[in-house]
Amino acid sequence: MTRILRFGMVGGGPGAFIGAVHQRAAEYDGRARLVAGAFSSDAARSQAHGRALGLDAARVYDDYRTMAEREAARTDDRIDLVVIVTPNHLHHEIATAFLECDIHVVCDKPLTTTLSDAESLCRLAAQRDRLLAVSYVYTGYPMVRQARALVADGAVGTLRRISVQYTQGWLAQAVERTGQKGAVWRTDPALAGAGALGDIGVHAFHLMGYVSGLAPQRLFADVTTHVDGRRVDDDASVLLQYDDGVRGLLVCTQVAGGVENDVRLRVSGDAGTLEWSHAHPEELVLHQASGGQRVYTRGGPDPVPAALRAMRLPPGHPEGFHDAFASMYADTIAVIEKHGAAAGDRNASRVAVATIARQFDLPDAADGAAGVHFIETALRSSREQCWVDARWQAPMASARS
Amino acid sequence: MTRILRFGMVGGGPGAFIGAVHQRAAEYDGRARLVAGAFSSDAARSQAHGRALGLDAARVYDDYRTMAEREAARTDDRIDLVVIVTPNHLHHEIATAFLECDIHVVCDKPLTTTLSDAESLCRLAAQRDRLLAVSYVYTGYPMVRQARALVADGAVGTLRRISVQYTQGWLAQAVERTGQKGAVWRTDPALAGAGALGDIGVHAFHLMGYVSGLAPQRLFADVTTHVDGRRVDDDASVLLQYDDGVRGLLVCTQVAGGVENDVRLRVSGDAGTLEWSHAHPEELVLHQASGGQRVYTRGGPDPVPAALRAMRLPPGHPEGFHDAFASMYADTIAVIEKHGAAAGDRNASRVAVATIARQFDLPDAADGAAGVHFIETALRSSREQCWVDARWQAPMASARS
Amino acid sequence: MTRILRFGMVGGGPGAFIGAVHQRAAEYDGRARLVAGAFSSDAARSQAHGRALGLDAARVYDDYRTMAEREAARTDDRIDLVVIVTPNHLHHEIATAFLECDIHVVCDKPLTTTLSDAESLCRLAAQRDRLLAVSYVYTGYPMVRQARALVADGAVGTLRRISVQYTQGWLAQAVERTGQKGAVWRTDPALAGAGALGDIGVHAFHLMGYVSGLAPQRLFADVTTHVDGRRVDDDASVLLQYDDGVRGLLVCTQVAGGVENDVRLRVSGDAGTLEWSHAHPEELVLHQASGGQRVYTRGGPDPVPAALRAMRLPPGHPEGFHDAFASMYADTIAVIEKHGAAAGDRNASRVAVATIARQFDLPDAADGAAGVHFIETALRSSREQCWVDARWQAPMASARS
Amino acid sequence: MTRILRFGMVGGGPGAFIGAVHQRAAEYDGRARLVAGAFSSDAARSQAHGRALGLDAARVYDDYRTMAEREAARTDDRIDLVVIVTPNHLHHEIATAFLECDIHVVCDKPLTTTLSDAESLCRLAAQRDRLLAVSYVYTGYPMVRQARALVADGAVGTLRRISVQYTQGWLAQAVERTGQKGAVWRTDPALAGAGALGDIGVHAFHLMGYVSGLAPQRLFADVTTHVDGRRVDDDASVLLQYDDGVRGLLVCTQVAGGVENDVRLRVSGDAGTLEWSHAHPEELVLHQASGGQRVYTRGGPDPVPAALRAMRLPPGHPEGFHDAFASMYADTIAVIEKHGAAAGDRNASRVAVATIARQFDLPDAADGAAGVHFIETALRSSREQCWVDARWQAPMASARS
Repeated sequence: MTRILRFGMVGGGPGAFIGAVHQRAAEYDGRARLVAGAFSSDAARSQAHGRALGLDAARVYDDYRTMAEREAARTDDRIDLVVIVTPNHLHHEIATAFLECDIHVVCDKPLTTTLSDAESLCRLAAQRDRLLAVSYVYTGYPMVRQARALVADGAVGTLRRISVQYTQGWLAQAVERTGQKGAVWRTDPALAGAGALGDIGVHAFHLMGYVSGLAPQRLFADVTTHVDGRRVDDDASVLLQYDDGVRGLLVCTQVAGGVENDVRLRVSGDAGTLEWSHAHPEELVLHQASGGQRVYTRGGPDPVPAALRAMRLPPGHPEGFHDAFASMYADTIAVIEKHGAAAGDRNASRVAVATIARQFDLPDAADGAAGVHFIETALRSSREQCWVDARWQAPMASARS
Repeated sequence: MTRILRFGMVGGGPGAFIGAVHQRAAEYDGRARLVAGAFSSDAARSQAHGRALGLDAARVYDDYRTMAEREAARTDDRIDLVVIVTPNHLHHEIATAFLECDIHVVCDKPLTTTLSDAESLCRLAAQRDRLLAVSYVYTGYPMVRQARALVADGAVGTLRRISVQYTQGWLAQAVERTGQKGAVWRTDPALAGAGALGDIGVHAFHLMGYVSGLAPQRLFADVTTHVDGRRVDDDASVLLQYDDGVRGLLVCTQVAGGVENDVRLRVSGDAGTLEWSHAHPEELVLHQASGGQRVYTRGGPDPVPAALRAMRLPPGHPEGFHDAFASMYADTIAVIEKHGAAAGDRNASRVAVATIARQFDLPDAADGAAGVHFIETALRSSREQCWVDARWQAPMASARS
Repeated sequence: MTRILRFGMVGGGPGAFIGAVHQRAAEYDGRARLVAGAFSSDAARSQAHGRALGLDAARVYDDYRTMAEREAARTDDRIDLVVIVTPNHLHHEIATAFLECDIHVVCDKPLTTTLSDAESLCRLAAQRDRLLAVSYVYTGYPMVRQARALVADGAVGTLRRISVQYTQGWLAQAVERTGQKGAVWRTDPALAGAGALGDIGVHAFHLMGYVSGLAPQRLFADVTTHVDGRRVDDDASVLLQYDDGVRGLLVCTQVAGGVENDVRLRVSGDAGTLEWSHAHPEELVLHQASGGQRVYTRGGPDPVPAALRAMRLPPGHPEGFHDAFASMYADTIAVIEKHGAAAGDRNASRVAVATIARQFDLPDAADGAAGVHFIETALRSSREQCWVDARWQAPMASARS
Repeated sequence: MTRILRFGMVGGGPGAFIGAVHQRAAEYDGRARLVAGAFSSDAARSQAHGRALGLDAARVYDDYRTMAEREAARTDDRIDLVVIVTPNHLHHEIATAFLECDIHVVCDKPLTTTLSDAESLCRLAAQRDRLLAVSYVYTGYPMVRQARALVADGAVGTLRRISVQYTQGWLAQAVERTGQKGAVWRTDPALAGAGALGDIGVHAFHLMGYVSGLAPQRLFADVTTHVDGRRVDDDASVLLQYDDGVRGLLVCTQVAGGVENDVRLRVSGDAGTLEWSHAHPEELVLHQASGGQRVYTRGGPDPVPAALRAMRLPPGHPEGFHDAFASMYADTIAVIEKHGAAAGDRNASRVAVATIARQFDLPDAADGAAGVHFIETALRSSREQCWVDARWQAPMASARS
């Protein structure tokens, strides 16, 4: 499958910045193109947006169900992939609709608003052998990928502590009451599920596991809402415990006035400590027990394949959020291509798409569900004021393969 | 002209990173699309590259002359714009060919290898009333635009010193002898003209003028070649003098081993000093005589329209080189659209494209020629070991308007 | 009292870096001079060290009890102040001995190894109206003082979160087994009491209260020991809750391999967030909800008196740990002088030294005891795995005044 | 000579910040003590200052000549060393007076206001075999010393470029007219000699040579005065050429509004580039051609003896300007002690103090004179607008040894 991949989008109408980001990222390398969409629950707005994007009017739909059906009915040029960028409460039903039509899915985080929904998607994706990727974009940064490899390779020695602190300030005041669209739905429990935990906490949670290779055993959380009248959490601190005494710390807050979008990762072992900050994503610092620091950049030293795969520019030409997002899509496309190739190749043993996704460390349905499990567990710990079991097992599925 | 703009590309075949950057940047916002190209002087390679990009084979050409002719001959869907990303020695003849067909041009820097070529392009662009933009990409960064506005607004007070230091290390050793493609042509005087001065010095020179609003009166340069056997300059230090005693310093070097692509701007006045570094392009620091520093980000305070126009993501989601490049293209497209609109509007007074470009501070033929003049002047000063006149006057042209 | 103050030292013999730091800091501004000491529990070592320092042999003592008695017996030139820099388990008895002789005390942190000891010192210091200062040195940094003033002044708005994270790596491995002197006693529960909590946690705890002006209501801690065989804690994460829903986070760890001595403070409110890092102590960053950042330096803007008092060099000439330590001593000396002046002034109303210390925000016995209370509370919470009451009330004392 | 060294001071009266810095630095490690002084040209002020410092009134002098004579006449406790911190025009005569009494000298920079004066001091110091150290304090920073060793050891490969840029803003406006004491004499040619070149340019010049080990062959300067009515230079840019094509750049300016005291060093070779900035003096960055960066701190890796000698605190406890100054004095004291030891040791071959100073890389009379030569050469180049010979040869002297 060397042809350009076709994708559709559900959500992402005018004013939704993340829709444009997904489209740009997917099309970044010229290997995929947006050809269809149901951009808004308002049919007229959906049509207008599709026109503005230059799409064939026949493939701009009034709702996602029609889109799934009609696209599935196309013989030669149906979409390979759908991107879901609606408010969270719709993710489950939309992903279900497309997976049932055997269309691959990229879904914005958090995957769903309940764990049972997330687990049902895990099973469905496995049954249909379709990719269900979740846009944990921070794994698209080359230096985050380098960090994962360095930890696995022993650069920090025996692990001691893992921490991700994700700090924002845009919800420090009750902006949802001013009608700011992104704030309105993100603070409505019916649409968003959780607040800070769902919006940014799951990024932090996935990042901790991605870089360390560890999943927590227990957690203790203090989840709170600072802004009067707000109906979802806007701040959480979570302590985690892993096997072998490793400790973890996750902070997600949206009420740190003046902070833009600050994500800081720190992984310590007995031989060194890695630090990465989203503010300067091109630099990965390794504090070494032997003294001083080593700063990794895209220029090296020793970039690992997963990092190299996520670079486009010569070092020193700053790459950023769009590039990381695009790298996540590049891997998504590669996984789909490889899966298709295997499917079309008579002699190849058939490999499940989830297996291929794992080769690319691509966040998939299980990672999405693990994030939803984290949200639920943290809320329960905070409510019950005690340590709770944080282990989660991906559901077994009778996959077609 | 709300339709999607069509552009072609000359050069930028496989392996040429800057071609992909131009294409991605031009298509970033979905307002332009690559439809034609002569990607290589090798016809087979050009065809292969066009196919890989999914272009109509009929619009992939063996050479730029054919491309200019055939595209000009198309009635409904000719390209609006051509992007020139060949080695420098071809810029003049290619730009000439397309301008003569009334096709707008974006040309990589330096504009040409001789000043007379550059001046002839200035005249031609004016005569045909076509845009000839030069890709001085650093002007696409929001914080560089903010810096320009702050200086104009008196934030640093009366100007004292301006400095841009552009430092790279990739040519610290004789990599051209290893066959590295980018190094081979950039160190061949027949293809590149000058070395460091042409490759990065013109960026620095334009940036100094862009941010300060000043053009130098005199300059003194020490231009040298560090690497044995290299036939172009790889290092230059230039002192500049402006009206009212303002002093300038420009350094461009490609032999600072280990340095990736370091561009640092500093503008000092009696009330403050602005600093910007390409390594962290989202931060603009104003040292204030009243104490401490103010750090400007895309989040504010008081972003100026030119900066706002160059932002896509919420602050704290790092934008980088691709975004800056895309913002330069966004302005290019806006200029062309506005020019076309004026042309199509019976009641509008006809405004020259150069006038519109100036409203967008878009680097154009005059800026390109000023860069070439700078190269020649610096080389002469270094050769003659004396201060030389640095003033340059854009040639008068009998524009059609 | 404009004469130069005389001070003695208990502990701080050869090899103990902190003894030299205290002496240098106390003598920094030429307003105090070391004249006596009992530098080691080994009398010969004590004498040798006193000789090396050029002290009068008659005032170099074999043990602290003799020193207290003999110094108290001197009529004209007894020491005004004793500095205690022994292992923690001796602080209580030594401080008691000198306070009972009406000699002011500066004691290294933590004040004692049990809360009851600390509270008894609080009472004794009040009864004798003598200063008992505790060397929470981070309050000596001008930018920390500026931070306290900015928070009090509303620069961050309504408080939301407070965090101090104190990270070291020097105990990441079992260096105590190599005989490293500082590690040996710090990991011996009989000598040190607690581990990381006592060595650095109390610094963090005091700093949180100092900058925010708040004391916690409840806390939840996860205190652990990573290194096999170590008998004290080497790592703790503590969640705190304050009135009005303010949340706090304190991390202290000594097992983050390769990290030198990293202290990071963050205070967030609905209007802004302050950040200070010990690595670059001359910079205080205020992220502003109105956009961008303001960086405070010793150069301004608007330095508060407490910060100005702690500066010696023109801005841009880096001050560091020695300067902060010296500023803590400068305040200590000023408090003692002011107290003495009041004592000698017939018309002045007699003011208790504790009241004067409070005017200087100088960490005193109550701050020391609060730190010890924090250690005990954190250990209890971690053991019981539940939120515990974190409030502590300084004991009432029948002061002489 | 294990006794504590005695020193006197000329200049440094109340209000002169640098006097206090010298005293604190000299006394930092308890190995030297101020015992005499002529602190002001106003006898009453000198006496008052001496009293405030607690000095014996008999050793507080009305003028430096009396001080030199009377101190020289003391048999047992004469000063070993005099520190000269007057305005520049007096350095020569004061240093001469003390050297002629065989008293070692530390002189503030620039050494003198004319080259002939400086050369005469070189000869005199050699004849009397006395140390004449010049307070180029930046060589006291451990990371600057590490940089020198790394360059010598080939860490940056074959040298290409050396640059030191020293930027201040405190003279951006005509503060001398407001009566600010430091500004008044520093902008009076009769007292200061040169302006920015003498005040900070010589620091930069010495630093370039210290770190690179190279002395320039030729230089070209643009020296100017930005502030109307000012009678000395306040801004200079200097291009330098060394053997083997190495290029240098020195900038010193005091008119960059808002900049505090910014010194940036960069040394590039074909294998790497070292960067050090005074703002963060504990970090030395080596950009490596092999990719990424290595950051050296006091914690390592591989600290060289000269750096280790200049450390007092564990890494991560910031050292700064006072510490660097004190390390310069520690070396000064070590040189004097070693010289005295040799003098008192019958079996030792007598070694000239200049030879010992060189073992410590301690800036001495020759380094001071080289700085004055640099000032004169830069002014001449700027005046004549041409490259000038920058070589300087220390005068031969009939040393006693």
